[in-house]
Amino acid sequence: MSGTNRNNPALKGGPAVVLVDPQLGQNIGMVARAMLNCGLTDLRLVRPRDGWPSREAAAAASGADEVLDRVQLFETTADAVADLQRLYATSARPRGMVKTVVSPREAASAMAGLAAASVGVLFGPERSGLVNDDLALADAVIAVPLNPAFASLNLAQAVLLVGYEWFQAAHPVPESRLEVNDAALATRADLINFFERLERALDETGFLFPPEKRPGMVRNLRNLFGRIAMTEPEVNTLHGIVSALRQGKRHAGEGDPD
Amino acid sequence: MSGTNRNNPALKGGPAVVLVDPQLGQNIGMVARAMLNCGLTDLRLVRPRDGWPSREAAAAASGADEVLDRVQLFETTADAVADLQRLYATSARPRGMVKTVVSPREAASAMAGLAAASVGVLFGPERSGLVNDDLALADAVIAVPLNPAFASLNLAQAVLLVGYEWFQAAHPVPESRLEVNDAALATRADLINFFERLERALDETGFLFPPEKRPGMVRNLRNLFGRIAMTEPEVNTLHGIVSALRQGKRHAGEGDPD
Repeated sequence: MSGTNRNNPALKGGPAVVLVDPQLGQNIGMVARAMLNCGLTDLRLVRPRDGWPSREAAAAASGADEVLDRVQLFETTADAVADLQRLYATSARPRGMVKTVVSPREAASAMAGLAAASVGVLFGPERSGLVNDDLALADAVIAVPLNPAFASLNLAQAVLLVGYEWFQAAHPVPESRLEVNDAALATRADLINFFERLERALDETGFLFPPEKRPGMVRNLRNLFGRIAMTEPEVNTLHGIVSALRQGKRHAGEGDPD
Repeated sequence: MSGTNRNNPALKGGPAVVLVDPQLGQNIGMVARAMLNCGLTDLRLVRPRDGWPSREAAAAASGADEVLDRVQLFETTADAVADLQRLYATSARPRGMVKTVVSPREAASAMAGLAAASVGVLFGPERSGLVNDDLALADAVIAVPLNPAFASLNLAQAVLLVGYEWFQAAHPVPESRLEVNDAALATRADLINFFERLERALDETGFLFPPEKRPGMVRNLRNLFGRIAMTEPEVNTLHGIVSALRQGKRHAGEGDPD
């Protein structure tokens, strides 16, 4: 599952991820994995505590070498963001500054609309978060709306949520789809044919009784089976079930004193 | 940051998280943490490989004891979901079954609309994912739209994304807000007063020249500073800057042969 595809044109233009004073190499590796999950490859490190490259990062990246191979190192946050035209900072807490605060979803929407510009997101060190001087470099702060009683995310999870929202904004997908596994969906004629077959069978057994209730019962049954959105093979299966049950009835009837 | 708040009424009604055949206790702990981040507390385990309770889970949960303390254990997936009225399964891959596939966002929206019903989400074991018999128990499959070349998420990250979407759907927040740190926003009168002060100072220096261009230059400056959405203290700071710069000009002029 950890393939690389450097030529995927759908994955261009995502924000740079800038980790300021990251501590554990393992966390940097997990960030790289989360980034590549979301199609992001521009990872920048400001003063990684345990040095770079990092064996722990490579182990934790689970194959996201494409990100680790391109890592850029910087001495200061200002150097790391110098080429960026729009910059967000992430912070869980208000910091006593006048600052625009946005959700990851709004930031992602704005970033996706800035496809021609270079954008980036700052993430602070694991324990303490970004210092105010770094927050002051950013245009706006991203705060993730979460359980206020338990809002602390680890670094890779914070990167994942921002990257996930960017991917959703940049690559809209149709919301719901029926996975049909190469089968054709049944036509209305297929469905009506089955409905009528079922109703004939039920008429024979006396199920659709009394006659004055039959129309309503038929409508309810059609609504019930119609909700399934069946494929052709599934309609055939239901035909088979009706046949099998009818035969069962006949067999049962043969030995049944009723 | 790992406080508990058992009485938060905003966090009721979230889906149960059902882990089928989870392997590592550490992953179960990280799932518990991600759940509580998203206000979810109903964790159900089907046949955890390394037994339960788990010291590794407790260590990885980073204080999400509220979730671990309530874990329920089950022998079968069917037992674990018996009381649920709506069930989703998570899967990264098509499985050769006819199944409705939804995004986490659509599933979350549907779940938030089912507040009165009990809902749940199935997650498979770390390496292999859910077996088809478990998928067949679910109403629909949640597939997370991610980089198709690198889509594999770890268990806690998959739970985090589903939980995050649920939290967003259940607790809508205003998208953008200015964090003003208890300061009052400036009124229009404050702004106009500053604009006129600045323009007088610039007139004195000859900056707003020639006269026929002055109206356009003034409009541009007002648009520039108006974009800031300032607080009262910030307007006062700008007044101070204008004063300081004017004094500097005067001082520079005293020693300047021009």
